[in-house]
Amino acid sequence: MKKLDLLTLGDELLLGLRPNAHLDYLGGEFARHGLPLRRNIVVGDAPADIEAAFRDAWQSADVIVTTGGLGPTSDDNTREAIAQVLGLPLEFDPAVEAAIVERFARSGRRINDLDRKQCYRPRGAQPLRNRAGTAPGIYLEKDGKILVMLPGPANELWPMFESEVLPRLQTAGVLSSGEAYLQLRTAGVPELHVEQRIRPIVDKYPGLGLAFCAHQGVVDVRIAPAARDFGPTQLQAIGDEMSAALGEDFVCFGHATLAQVVLDELRARAATLAVAESCTGGLLASALTDIPGASKIFLGGVVSYTDDAKLQMLDVPESLLDQHGPVSAETAVAMVTGAAERFGADYALSVTGLAGPEGGTKELPVGTVFLGYSSPVGAWSRKMFFSGDRLTVKARTVNAALDWMRRKLLKYKVAELHATGVGREAKP
Amino acid sequence: MKKLDLLTLGDELLLGLRPNAHLDYLGGEFARHGLPLRRNIVVGDAPADIEAAFRDAWQSADVIVTTGGLGPTSDDNTREAIAQVLGLPLEFDPAVEAAIVERFARSGRRINDLDRKQCYRPRGAQPLRNRAGTAPGIYLEKDGKILVMLPGPANELWPMFESEVLPRLQTAGVLSSGEAYLQLRTAGVPELHVEQRIRPIVDKYPGLGLAFCAHQGVVDVRIAPAARDFGPTQLQAIGDEMSAALGEDFVCFGHATLAQVVLDELRARAATLAVAESCTGGLLASALTDIPGASKIFLGGVVSYTDDAKLQMLDVPESLLDQHGPVSAETAVAMVTGAAERFGADYALSVTGLAGPEGGTKELPVGTVFLGYSSPVGAWSRKMFFSGDRLTVKARTVNAALDWMRRKLLKYKVAELHATGVGREAKP
Repeated sequence: MKKLDLLTLGDELLLGLRPNAHLDYLGGEFARHGLPLRRNIVVGDAPADIEAAFRDAWQSADVIVTTGGLGPTSDDNTREAIAQVLGLPLEFDPAVEAAIVERFARSGRRINDLDRKQCYRPRGAQPLRNRAGTAPGIYLEKDGKILVMLPGPANELWPMFESEVLPRLQTAGVLSSGEAYLQLRTAGVPELHVEQRIRPIVDKYPGLGLAFCAHQGVVDVRIAPAARDFGPTQLQAIGDEMSAALGEDFVCFGHATLAQVVLDELRARAATLAVAESCTGGLLASALTDIPGASKIFLGGVVSYTDDAKLQMLDVPESLLDQHGPVSAETAVAMVTGAAERFGADYALSVTGLAGPEGGTKELPVGTVFLGYSSPVGAWSRKMFFSGDRLTVKARTVNAALDWMRRKLLKYKVAELHATGVGREAKP
Repeated sequence: MKKLDLLTLGDELLLGLRPNAHLDYLGGEFARHGLPLRRNIVVGDAPADIEAAFRDAWQSADVIVTTGGLGPTSDDNTREAIAQVLGLPLEFDPAVEAAIVERFARSGRRINDLDRKQCYRPRGAQPLRNRAGTAPGIYLEKDGKILVMLPGPANELWPMFESEVLPRLQTAGVLSSGEAYLQLRTAGVPELHVEQRIRPIVDKYPGLGLAFCAHQGVVDVRIAPAARDFGPTQLQAIGDEMSAALGEDFVCFGHATLAQVVLDELRARAATLAVAESCTGGLLASALTDIPGASKIFLGGVVSYTDDAKLQMLDVPESLLDQHGPVSAETAVAMVTGAAERFGADYALSVTGLAGPEGGTKELPVGTVFLGYSSPVGAWSRKMFFSGDRLTVKARTVNAALDWMRRKLLKYKVAELHATGVGREAKP
């Protein structure tokens, strides 16, 4: 297997000013196409640091990808530093200059000498077209190695990687054309339990690669060919075996969020959804509205951060609040019923709890959460507890609420499809 | 200046399964204490990869920090790989074993041989106490260099760094005891404009280090001693000069979010806040409720994702929706007035717009947003436009709404403090 190094360049990464999102994106893309990263090296903008890091990578790797430092400003040094290490002259490309002149003309701007830095590339390299900015990327094959230089801004890098880099690396035989791994997403169970359930299947297929990643109540399992080759069909068959073993803890193949999965289930029922939130404070509604097209299913929500808001906006009876308190199963059910009625929604979810850091008691410590769920066939509540800080409790509660709804939707699929008038049978 | 390398270990980072949050946290912490990272190297869990990366770092850096691979499982190889490179034997520490036995006893678990891996450390090293898990960190001074090995889980790493590592590195003279830089947060203006406004001040102080980071409408400026030494008092004086030059575009010194700044302003007025959201879909309420103690000021919000919800939950007149449409200045004002009245809030913010990807027209392209703001002295609307995908439009709209409110609160500080009955003068 080829050795692949990623060099992400920029002082702001080392200063903790900006997350290294290029590692996430490119690491995921390369793994998906069969060539996981061997290393990621982050260095600053100083030419000496870039040269040292690139010299080392060029000696020991087969494919080297760099990000950042291709622009016109004084801290953009990648082009010059790398040409120096490769011992290649930088050559001016009038076609790139013409493209910049044309791009600038639209906003009445004129090209200057700093901008012209972007028109140079090492002898023998190809330009990679930049649809969202001025600096082209650079692609070079030399001494049996491949160098790909990408611009720093994510909105320029993503489309360039997809339309210019992927096809070249597939043609060069470095990347596979299909997906090289299969991801199973699970929810509501710890990583250890997921592993125990799929371990007997993994043991049946020696040479199968396995990786886990847990985040806020969701556990992703990634299976891929490792010590032995598995074709896509066989990988999918193994994935199907695993999903059967995981039962209702299995959410989906791939990367769909729990919000996406729930909205898809509701779309199949031609049903609508509303939410009522206390401790998640809008994060549940925001997770749902992150999904394009959510407006066809999601009608809206109420963030009721006070007793008065629960009473005025969700018709939670004052006597119920007095008797059971705002953080209770009874209030969760009253909130969810109120949200469904107020918005005229077929389904609703509610959350009330204590995200902290203050406000906990012995009976109701910080992290205590009550969920409410209402469907055409009834209303339920559920008590849960999450440890962690305020933002963790918010995020885990949102995932728990959506996962609970997902399970309920699966369980009552036939009855509810009937009740909402879509049909008598669940869709395949 | 000492050379500092960070080695973050873990297959999941290279596969794009998990963001490299340790780089953000540790990069920020080290910069804050006067020693910015020189490099970050990310490699997987294979012992050969760890050995190669560590050998290189140990040769060329003065301080090396590693994260991950100290736990009990089979892919935890950091301790062994590094001891190998250093040529040091691993020694068993019965005190660590006793601590694990005691910790496990609470949950009725018994220690096994895999767990005992965590009781070993290279000869001459000190253990770093782990308050949140079983694997202690490792601290070693050798050949004039310093090695710090930290566990992978963030909830174990953060407190260990703060209470065990920082004091040791300060005693060793590697880190400063105070803050080594000053951050100015601005909002609502592009990086280029911020730079133009502070450039004359920067030019007055040769040797001053300057870094920018732009994120979703917020631009952070970080100033620090670089080629010349500046004490904390002088750094603050320069920062004060810059904040004066930035005028109302200056948000705060440090890291407070716009939500935090707005809530602090309202707290000073003993005033309350409600929100009404369409295209941001709960993200505005969630940004506000991310702040501990928000419940004392923020009463709640409505996510009105349909015309009917705007009518039923916010009293937006049907005739107004018919005449002007849901994405209009008139609707934004009706929503904000409705939210203030329904929740009985002194102040309110509203958002209506098109986050995309579908639903845009020639008159109202995707990215068009109307904001509404109401205070005890009036109600306003404002039209804005943001390019980018759905999540970008949501995030930029939330920042723009909060920043607009921040500016309004500054402008009407005296009048509103009077109107809300807190006092006649702004607090200092």
